[in-house]
Amino acid sequence: MWQPHQMADLADVLRERGLEMDPADLSDLTSHPLDAVIGLGFCTASFVSPQGLIVTNHHCAYGAIQYNSTPERDLISDGFLARSLDEELPADPSLRVYVTQAIDEVTDRVTGSLPAGLDDRARFDAIDAATKALVADCEAPGGLRCGVYSFFGGLRFYLVRQMEIRDVRLVHAPPDAIGKFGGDVDNFEWPRHTGDYSFMRAYVGPDGKPADYAKENVPYRPDSWLRVAEQGPEAGDFVMVAGYPGSTNRYRRASEVAAAIDWRLPTMIDYLERSLDIIGRQTEGRDEAAIKYAATVASLNNALKLYRGQRDGFARIDAVADKQAAEAALLAWLGDQGASRRAQREAVAALEAEIAAERATRERDLWVGLLGRSGLVGSANLLYRQARESARPDAEREAGYQARDRPRQEARLRQLERRYDPQVDRALLAFVLQRYAALPADQRVAELDRWLGLAPGGTSVDDLDARLDALYAGTALGDTEARLRWFGADAAAIEASDDSALALAVAIAPALRRIEDAEKAREGRFSVLRPQVMQATIDFNAAQGRPVYPDANNSLRLTFGTVQGYAPRDAVRYEPFTTLAGIAEKHTGAEPFDAPAAELEAIAAGAGARYRGEALDAVPVNFLSDVDTTGGNSGSPTLNARGELVGLLFDGNYESLASDYVFNPDVTRSIHVDARYMRWVMDTVSGADNLLEEMGLPHGEEAR
Amino acid sequence: MWQPHQMADLADVLRERGLEMDPADLSDLTSHPLDAVIGLGFCTASFVSPQGLIVTNHHCAYGAIQYNSTPERDLISDGFLARSLDEELPADPSLRVYVTQAIDEVTDRVTGSLPAGLDDRARFDAIDAATKALVADCEAPGGLRCGVYSFFGGLRFYLVRQMEIRDVRLVHAPPDAIGKFGGDVDNFEWPRHTGDYSFMRAYVGPDGKPADYAKENVPYRPDSWLRVAEQGPEAGDFVMVAGYPGSTNRYRRASEVAAAIDWRLPTMIDYLERSLDIIGRQTEGRDEAAIKYAATVASLNNALKLYRGQRDGFARIDAVADKQAAEAALLAWLGDQGASRRAQREAVAALEAEIAAERATRERDLWVGLLGRSGLVGSANLLYRQARESARPDAEREAGYQARDRPRQEARLRQLERRYDPQVDRALLAFVLQRYAALPADQRVAELDRWLGLAPGGTSVDDLDARLDALYAGTALGDTEARLRWFGADAAAIEASDDSALALAVAIAPALRRIEDAEKAREGRFSVLRPQVMQATIDFNAAQGRPVYPDANNSLRLTFGTVQGYAPRDAVRYEPFTTLAGIAEKHTGAEPFDAPAAELEAIAAGAGARYRGEALDAVPVNFLSDVDTTGGNSGSPTLNARGELVGLLFDGNYESLASDYVFNPDVTRSIHVDARYMRWVMDTVSGADNLLEEMGLPHGEEAR
Repeated sequence: MWQPHQMADLADVLRERGLEMDPADLSDLTSHPLDAVIGLGFCTASFVSPQGLIVTNHHCAYGAIQYNSTPERDLISDGFLARSLDEELPADPSLRVYVTQAIDEVTDRVTGSLPAGLDDRARFDAIDAATKALVADCEAPGGLRCGVYSFFGGLRFYLVRQMEIRDVRLVHAPPDAIGKFGGDVDNFEWPRHTGDYSFMRAYVGPDGKPADYAKENVPYRPDSWLRVAEQGPEAGDFVMVAGYPGSTNRYRRASEVAAAIDWRLPTMIDYLERSLDIIGRQTEGRDEAAIKYAATVASLNNALKLYRGQRDGFARIDAVADKQAAEAALLAWLGDQGASRRAQREAVAALEAEIAAERATRERDLWVGLLGRSGLVGSANLLYRQARESARPDAEREAGYQARDRPRQEARLRQLERRYDPQVDRALLAFVLQRYAALPADQRVAELDRWLGLAPGGTSVDDLDARLDALYAGTALGDTEARLRWFGADAAAIEASDDSALALAVAIAPALRRIEDAEKAREGRFSVLRPQVMQATIDFNAAQGRPVYPDANNSLRLTFGTVQGYAPRDAVRYEPFTTLAGIAEKHTGAEPFDAPAAELEAIAAGAGARYRGEALDAVPVNFLSDVDTTGGNSGSPTLNARGELVGLLFDGNYESLASDYVFNPDVTRSIHVDARYMRWVMDTVSGADNLLEEMGLPHGEEAR
Repeated sequence: MWQPHQMADLADVLRERGLEMDPADLSDLTSHPLDAVIGLGFCTASFVSPQGLIVTNHHCAYGAIQYNSTPERDLISDGFLARSLDEELPADPSLRVYVTQAIDEVTDRVTGSLPAGLDDRARFDAIDAATKALVADCEAPGGLRCGVYSFFGGLRFYLVRQMEIRDVRLVHAPPDAIGKFGGDVDNFEWPRHTGDYSFMRAYVGPDGKPADYAKENVPYRPDSWLRVAEQGPEAGDFVMVAGYPGSTNRYRRASEVAAAIDWRLPTMIDYLERSLDIIGRQTEGRDEAAIKYAATVASLNNALKLYRGQRDGFARIDAVADKQAAEAALLAWLGDQGASRRAQREAVAALEAEIAAERATRERDLWVGLLGRSGLVGSANLLYRQARESARPDAEREAGYQARDRPRQEARLRQLERRYDPQVDRALLAFVLQRYAALPADQRVAELDRWLGLAPGGTSVDDLDARLDALYAGTALGDTEARLRWFGADAAAIEASDDSALALAVAIAPALRRIEDAEKAREGRFSVLRPQVMQATIDFNAAQGRPVYPDANNSLRLTFGTVQGYAPRDAVRYEPFTTLAGIAEKHTGAEPFDAPAAELEAIAAGAGARYRGEALDAVPVNFLSDVDTTGGNSGSPTLNARGELVGLLFDGNYESLASDYVFNPDVTRSIHVDARYMRWVMDTVSGADNLLEEMGLPHGEEAR
């Protein structure tokens, strides 16, 4: 996950691995190919024609497809193809395309002038203020979105300026049965057979500037766009991926990884399993309640698979021992340098102390945090916090409670209607409260103990049922209109209310505030210590000629690697390519393995022979590589050694889930849609000749 | 699955595949190596020392291990090793070792003198009588077991003479956690890591003749024994397996395979799924009943996996179309031969007609058959049939009801005590009766309709509950003593009884007899037609220089092939060898993945480097080959090109289950214990130096 400007340092490695272009061309954000790589919501996308045609994942375009679907015109099931510009459909108006224009280091302006010995919380606030000022300044001309990104744990800061295109239209999507083939069952799995691609188009005003959707808008003409390769990769070929990976934690200390393995993962897995079990039991035979919790269940299951994958990934390697060895080597090297590295050695010790301190309240922070955020109690907390923040000038309010956040908060209060059942909510709350009550005395919160009637040192609530009866009977917040009526009320009115949920929120607010303040102070201390340790790590690696990449942080990165399979377990080998035959093999006729009849016929007929891989002797569908990606990379273009598009990154394998913390090169793989499969479907199943033509690709009879 | 005498015809192929011995040596049953291959219960085994030491599968020795286990001395969990002859333990007295002495063709004496135009049933009875006479004659000298085996669907008959050794002792077994590692979860699965081997020893009287167990008996000294290879096979190496495969149906007609795919498999899968569901619901919260049905549930689940495997195997290929094409080619060739092959062409048509006729009553035959055999009603039927058969001279009785069958029948009546719960039995019976009642009018049985009070044409029983109430309330047969009291009663007493279950047995007996008679008559017709069609098939293949092997029939066969993996599905490759690392990988600490600590330590320590495969660079555990085996082959020696033992056949893969009907060489694989794993465990975990020494193998320090 290299920053583009690091490509120059990697020139030799890149050439050795097979890059057939000038590595310098990969470090310039404002020229081909990197200027064709764009942000799209929480995904990555790329321009693939001079008329602003965009390719990304089907799951990244899902909102736009859903937005245009009606019971009469079900684009999710049927797919969609605009045969001309005027058939293209406006996406959800909140969708944005971001074209990165500049990345400038602003470390000096963020932390350069902070006085030494600044108090923790003041340091936190100063960084926050400097960041807000830089962003406001940058966005002033309009049509832009700017952000200050922290690299290397706060060691360096970069200001990223992006053009924000607001008129984005849906051009083409395969039916769900191709674009989401395998669904949640195949999520994180290999072998995979998903046609996870869709096309959008960026539009601007007739003046060429970003504009809200309007009929007279015209396609945006990007400075450059990616060419789709005529041939695809073979096993062993060099590939690279450019995109916006979200976040990783590769530089966490051994002690932090140990805490993840020993406490956080088992605790979260248990919490998720029990929550799913509670929801299952409480909704049994109650269809309406079950429907309300369907999205929650899907999201808990997804998180559960993620945490289990991390747990299983850690079981393959001794990540803690590896980290400890690396940390010992670093400390030894720092020691060798004598007094000049003394401050860094002390920072290492201080960081470890801070991590230990964080551990002391981790259970409290988890359970009180869960209590504060979810369901009925979460709504009450939101209403009371909003009321208190609203009393302050907008600029001084906590992020998330400013005027611009109001629509999102209101939506959250409304959404509860479709995701709330008092019986289920109460059972989940009871579970969290029991976990809280079992905490040792030094992690308990007086306000909550008082509300629960818990004696000091007591660990079980005798009359929990009665208290929950009173809570759910005495509140109107289960009702959406009531929630919205309180939205905008002032703090005094809430404090005077006899609504039982609001009363609980008022009672525990000081506790939540104390915990939040402590966290901010800790962040302030981390913002001093982590950069020092990171600098030591960079220096240590530099002394051995090894560049260091920063953790993912939603900024544009490049990763390169090789198309290759792996051995998931003893005597099993996963090949790097799946083929059309595998679709027919998986097809059951039932979702999520319900391939369209037209596709099955084309497979059976051997249509589209031009898309066959030579060594593979079949049309490839998805492929694996060892490039280093994570959430946010979805939709990223996969490029060959000449910078041509050969696929779209869309997932990682199950074994990659632990790569949030450690990258295990033996089994960590990214999963790509092969562009030949995308073209095969477009050509032989969807008849998307107009788009193949626009991308300069053969199609129709010519292609087969 | 070649007959040994066919090896001469295959000499060129065998040499080409890599055989490094004279193919003629593989066709002589009375010389090395085939005379070292022996029968053991329903398994195969082999002599591996001049002192009668026998190696076979752990699961084939399971009865002997169980027989010697007590709560104080749990040989199943702990394993067993006799360090000298006097520590060896007598196996269950019913266990037999069979050493094949001769195989002679007796077709002339079985079917050679049957008059043409013999009536179907008379033909069936004549073959039955000739067979019985040959067996009695052969066994007359004593100490022998003889059998007449039908080859090629009754085209040829062979008399097999085997020495029957009655004193068999347990010598060595690994703990269950090695010998059954993976248990039912891994049954039919790859990758596999099972140490499925055990050692027994054959004993004879001091005079060298078979004798019942006695202290003064001495080890049997076989004429030859297999040498264990110093090195194991590598991927791609030639291997062969000699053993006693039970039964296959490779020469069934396309129409019969279609019936299996379209009717039999889905019907049985549904029947098994529903039966399991019924047992699950009826035993919920009733631990005692659940325990009683545990063995039934295990056996239904095993059958279910088998049928599902067949279904999934058929889904991979178009077996019916392939068979139809082969049948069309045969018919065309027969047609080309003109009048000389007219009788064979007519036999094909007649066989198809017979198969169609069988189809007409298949539902009735299935449901009435299930009704007649199982649980309470099955016991009542057995008692009444036994009473009627006992009235006839012993030699004329139906097989299974002769004097020598009495102990087995009594055991069956006793065993019901541990496998019967009236509530479960009733629910299963109700299900079968409902299926019966739904049959069309032309498949219904008057006696059963009458008992059910079913109107002609009616398809549901109005008062089934009341009838079942009466059945279960009015019988004493749920009680073991009552069942045994009736065992030996005469038919008139049973007919006069007012026991409701016996009354049902008496009522439906004529129907069961009619169905049995029809089946025997059909067998008589098949015994004329199948040999003619088989002869045509053999002639057709011979004209193209292709030898044909007969279906498995429990007689000694040889199969040869190559060590190789396969691709179970798109983008997945199964390697041919598993390794020690895979045991540690699968180990969870819970059954069936609970490897012994000593084994895990030896793996972690890298003990026993001499057992590593060269190309594999690890100690192999199990391996795959494409040899053709089936149930009964368990325990068979796997031999290398020089006839040395390199492994033990112990299972087939899931994809092989359909090979009962069709052998799909792409995915059908046999699973072997690698002899190097067996030796590694014996040497580094079990300390079985005495046995390694007896087999002439390095051991202890010398070996490591």
